[in-house]
Amino acid sequence: MAEETKVFDVVFTGAGRMTGKMRNDVSVNFETMDETFALATDEGAFHGADGTASPPLALFAAVLTGCVMTQLRAFSKRMKIPIDAVEVNARLHWQGEQQGRDPYVTAPVGFDLDIDLKSDAPEADQRRLLDAAKKGCFIEQTLAKGLTVGHRLKTETGWQDA
Amino acid sequence: MAEETKVFDVVFTGAGRMTGKMRNDVSVNFETMDETFALATDEGAFHGADGTASPPLALFAAVLTGCVMTQLRAFSKRMKIPIDAVEVNARLHWQGEQQGRDPYVTAPVGFDLDIDLKSDAPEADQRRLLDAAKKGCFIEQTLAKGLTVGHRLKTETGWQDA
Repeated sequence: MAEETKVFDVVFTGAGRMTGKMRNDVSVNFETMDETFALATDEGAFHGADGTASPPLALFAAVLTGCVMTQLRAFSKRMKIPIDAVEVNARLHWQGEQQGRDPYVTAPVGFDLDIDLKSDAPEADQRRLLDAAKKGCFIEQTLAKGLTVGHRLKTETGWQDA
Repeated sequence: MAEETKVFDVVFTGAGRMTGKMRNDVSVNFETMDETFALATDEGAFHGADGTASPPLALFAAVLTGCVMTQLRAFSKRMKIPIDAVEVNARLHWQGEQQGRDPYVTAPVGFDLDIDLKSDAPEADQRRLLDAAKKGCFIEQTLAKGLTVGHRLKTETGWQDA
């Protein structure tokens, strides 16, 4: 008998409001679970801001590091490949380019993760677990596939694609 | 005389440690500014975890919402296009697919941002500002270009590509 294939949706919404010089408060809802998280981003003194919360890119570094760690742990049990006090070191590198005084344009250079599973399992098993974690990591899969974010702008005549 | 082109690097590192059932503590360093942020991710009861911090995908929803808001504000001054109490509503949709009891495989479906600049500026100016903010947003540009994250695994013979 063929194995059953299950497809499931994961949807998050965010409602963002500017609440300080560079601070944004974002109420995030995990629709699938009906859980809500009160989150915020800010910038530091370099941007003339107050540093009341982490900048978006610092949060993103935590997301990229934490996402694969979460999958490693979730799949470790399922695949019966034991891991211990896993350590992950991440490096995220972007560049910006600015012509004269124009707004700058940004691009990613490379993101790298060094992973120490602290496991006695054979290397081949550790690699199988890491491969599964990469494929199960929503963030790494999104980055790998690429995605153009859709935008709509509120105009005098209503919401328009932008 | 040609306008000067400036290129600048933005580098973040993250050091992640597992510190609870599904909790990860990540010390993030903004190398360029030598600033450090103590961040964490966790999962909720559905994953048998304690919900002591936001899940990675909730943080990511805040990152995607906050990143473009930050650029809108930064470039609003530079481009002399006034904006007021900007509101951004984001929707992030992923799917997972699972064969039998195998680890699931994930993929993005679509991310959408509805942006209300609360601005009296002409629509054409608002669109110019939004276009600049998209190009200046590190996260949206990274998603648009796509990127395969590099991995190394600590093995008995040292660090190996994985």
